[in-house]
Amino acid sequence: MKTSIDCIPCFVRQTLQATRFVSVYPSVHEGVLREILRCLAGLDFDRPPPLVGQMIHRKLRELTGNHDPYKDIKERHNRLAVGLLPELREKVKRSSDPLKTSVRLAITGNIVDLGAKSGLTEDEVRSSIARTLSEPFHVDIEGLRREINRASSILYLADNAGEIVFDRLLIEELPLERVTVAVRGGPVINDATMDDACAAGLHEIVRVIDNGSDAPGTILDDCSLEFQRHFNEADLIIAKGQGNYETLSEESANIFFLFRIKCSVVASHTGFEPETNVLAGISKTVR
Amino acid sequence: MKTSIDCIPCFVRQTLQATRFVSVYPSVHEGVLREILRCLAGLDFDRPPPLVGQMIHRKLRELTGNHDPYKDIKERHNRLAVGLLPELREKVKRSSDPLKTSVRLAITGNIVDLGAKSGLTEDEVRSSIARTLSEPFHVDIEGLRREINRASSILYLADNAGEIVFDRLLIEELPLERVTVAVRGGPVINDATMDDACAAGLHEIVRVIDNGSDAPGTILDDCSLEFQRHFNEADLIIAKGQGNYETLSEESANIFFLFRIKCSVVASHTGFEPETNVLAGISKTVR
Repeated sequence: MKTSIDCIPCFVRQTLQATRFVSVYPSVHEGVLREILRCLAGLDFDRPPPLVGQMIHRKLRELTGNHDPYKDIKERHNRLAVGLLPELREKVKRSSDPLKTSVRLAITGNIVDLGAKSGLTEDEVRSSIARTLSEPFHVDIEGLRREINRASSILYLADNAGEIVFDRLLIEELPLERVTVAVRGGPVINDATMDDACAAGLHEIVRVIDNGSDAPGTILDDCSLEFQRHFNEADLIIAKGQGNYETLSEESANIFFLFRIKCSVVASHTGFEPETNVLAGISKTVR
Repeated sequence: MKTSIDCIPCFVRQTLQATRFVSVYPSVHEGVLREILRCLAGLDFDRPPPLVGQMIHRKLRELTGNHDPYKDIKERHNRLAVGLLPELREKVKRSSDPLKTSVRLAITGNIVDLGAKSGLTEDEVRSSIARTLSEPFHVDIEGLRREINRASSILYLADNAGEIVFDRLLIEELPLERVTVAVRGGPVINDATMDDACAAGLHEIVRVIDNGSDAPGTILDDCSLEFQRHFNEADLIIAKGQGNYETLSEESANIFFLFRIKCSVVASHTGFEPETNVLAGISKTVR
């Protein structure tokens, strides 16, 4: 999808939030903000919103000299989620429709959005799971089941650290020998990279690749040729998170998007209500 | 007060809102946004926030060729408020403390914030008045009463159209022969200008001047010399609205600020709670 002018106030807010997370120095906050404002003034609105996220976080890493500012928080959230894995896996196994339950839990991982909440506790995550599991889900589970059965190769695009552990529950319900999981090619915010896939133990059960890009989404022309080949050859792509929706919604591939609609611009683009607790597994045919 | 980096996302949001109010053309929206982003990138944070409001609305007027885009809505809100004047005046006269009641109603005019709500009805305003009159007010009424009795010249700085009619209730409780009311020197958003003061009938009861500036606040070095003289010579200044607080809070004059705290930056600057229904008449000694 293209970037809306309504994304701009949000980008500015995100810049402030991120720069304060990454540095305690007001001069850094102001410097990053000024530079991002200059970039936004000349922004190509035909490109998807995560391109700005990529730009903001590259600038932050450059100005702070910190290659991966969210490293500690990503590790903490992975550990926290891994601790919950046995009981969540039990929930999946005991349910009448394990695929459906695992899809719900995978999207729940996206809702919980461990993000930059450094003080998040296991209890908070557990009550958040309970709450979000009772929310309405708009998931075309039969469509997904049909595509899974049909596909000889499935590409699973992960989203964030922590969340990727929840993804494992869904991945375990897929025909593992046909699955490739892709993570970001480099650190950006709390997005999942190879380290996070390994923390979730995914490398032990499926093939894991990285996409060669440090955008918080999947900007195909910024990805490695190897990733592009996987993308083009996959019969089914499961794309987690809003960033992947924002960057891939115009692609003609067979993509199931699993994410929570977190802003009114994406809500309007999908046709679902803005700012509701709608969770959407959107296939191209639904849009 | 200085501008905070936290004001920037809000400026961008205000730019979008204003440009959409003033023009239906996406190319105008995008053009104004890009230009304001460029200006914000080089902003002097030592200057007060309304300087940006002035810049945004000058640019909007320039690009649309419309000298006063909010003219119709200001007229409508003045008429609406004038229609309520007799019953509100009755409320003041019958109250045990007319000055206090008129101060409450004057701040209520600031809360109602007729702003750009084009479809606002008299019923909505009336129920808004009833609701806001029951909210907690932080007003140093005895301090104000003492200063009014002491002052041989009182300068009343008005805020918005519509609201200025509510101000009349308070102005009528002042010693009229000692009062000068000042409005903005040119149209900016829905801020009150000379036309609005006349619509409220203020020119018939007190001296009315304009400040020579088109900022949505009182930026002294942008005001006319005549206004500056009035400002410097006044024994008491009553400044309505957050814009006047933002631009005059560092002045050493004897100012009573009457306004609703509408954002967290100003809340933090005043020491009152952010985003509450607190209404504050803040004298310099309270800060």
